[in-house]
Amino acid sequence: MPSKSVPSSATFSVHPFPGLGIIKKGDDVGLQICQTCRETKFNLCEGDVLVVAQTVVSRAEGRIVVLSSVVPSHRARRLAAKLGKPANLVEVILRASKRILRAEKGHLITETPHGFVCANSGVDSSNVPEPDSVTLLPENPDASAERIRQTIKERLKVNVGIIISDTHGRPFREGAINVAIGVAGLLPMKVYIGLTDLFGYVLRSTKVAIADELASAAELVMGEADEGNAVVVIRGYRFEPGEGSGQTLVRDPRRDLFRR
Amino acid sequence: MPSKSVPSSATFSVHPFPGLGIIKKGDDVGLQICQTCRETKFNLCEGDVLVVAQTVVSRAEGRIVVLSSVVPSHRARRLAAKLGKPANLVEVILRASKRILRAEKGHLITETPHGFVCANSGVDSSNVPEPDSVTLLPENPDASAERIRQTIKERLKVNVGIIISDTHGRPFREGAINVAIGVAGLLPMKVYIGLTDLFGYVLRSTKVAIADELASAAELVMGEADEGNAVVVIRGYRFEPGEGSGQTLVRDPRRDLFRR
Repeated sequence: MPSKSVPSSATFSVHPFPGLGIIKKGDDVGLQICQTCRETKFNLCEGDVLVVAQTVVSRAEGRIVVLSSVVPSHRARRLAAKLGKPANLVEVILRASKRILRAEKGHLITETPHGFVCANSGVDSSNVPEPDSVTLLPENPDASAERIRQTIKERLKVNVGIIISDTHGRPFREGAINVAIGVAGLLPMKVYIGLTDLFGYVLRSTKVAIADELASAAELVMGEADEGNAVVVIRGYRFEPGEGSGQTLVRDPRRDLFRR
Repeated sequence: MPSKSVPSSATFSVHPFPGLGIIKKGDDVGLQICQTCRETKFNLCEGDVLVVAQTVVSRAEGRIVVLSSVVPSHRARRLAAKLGKPANLVEVILRASKRILRAEKGHLITETPHGFVCANSGVDSSNVPEPDSVTLLPENPDASAERIRQTIKERLKVNVGIIISDTHGRPFREGAINVAIGVAGLLPMKVYIGLTDLFGYVLRSTKVAIADELASAAELVMGEADEGNAVVVIRGYRFEPGEGSGQTLVRDPRRDLFRR
């Protein structure tokens, strides 16, 4: 098998997308993006990657729970007391969890039905307009991403990559970083196999989670709470087009050395 | 305490730095960068962030081990047999490790003296010019970063941020991403505390590892094996200047829920 030098990507840039306005339940994020493009004369280009904050998608999809409407189970109450969290919040987290990995030192680290391992199953109380409410992760972030991609393709006639991002903590390292939970239109993993390095040696195999790296790059513009930057445009990065799925980045628990 | 809206960063861009040429033991990476700037008329700007691949720094600092010169211990031979790795490579990894976290399924996940948790303590056999050789991580990546920063400041009269990056795997998610192992001239963590979100709620506290996100953004241009892109320039990102240290991003093992 002939090996060749790894091609390198050229310069790319990361831009805030013009403010989307407050997204409400029932809104169509893709349509809002297209409308904002028209109103602000912002041109999306073929090959742009749009990174959309999970919170916007969750709100549009009505993934909002009013805490006072939740009756905590016995298990939730026990766990809440141990962790110093509100019992109805813990109940919401448990309902959004497939499995608890850690419940200690005030932290509840869980596995979501999608397979994401994160704090509180992604249940989030910041950036929720309704008082006493929290957002859940989108039920199917890949489908959410694909809907946005299709709408942009139909209305604006450009093929873009879409990443739905969320901010996750991680073991071993302090500080959260943005990762890709939903992907459409781009392959989220770049695989270096059988390519030679600079000295002609064949690299064994390195898989790089470029969708996570794109999500992280976008966070630097997105910030934590600024609705105006809930969507970020990455321009000039040459990704591999393809169906793509955020699930590619989820490690099979049987292959995972730390999921126990 | 008055809270205010989270300020957002503007557009930034990510550029390959002109090829440094092959870095050899004893080379001064900072000087090489300055010389390349002069030769190629590439202007570094005040506030640029330079992300430098660990492998370049390790080579310059002579952190290279010839495997055939290494006599494996009994422990290394036993572990090597279990993992299907060469015994002298395992010996090098063990010498570069403070602690083994996992040794199974062909993987050796260790904690380095710096506190990084990664595969093989960062011992790497790609991009090493000498046959039968591997690189070790820099002994003090923060000091390496600071030396480069000082040289650039003295010679080119610009203040830049420096990040020494390495590609790490992680639990729960497939694919490696670039992280910051050494930092100089910028604060690696952005802390959102007491700021209001869009709806006026006070965010509890979110710490974002922006140095890791900058390293990840750079990887998208760096690629895995292309020496020409071992240095990447990030322009326009408004970081908080400061002494900075990659150690800020290392979680204290006592606070870590997964380091056992």
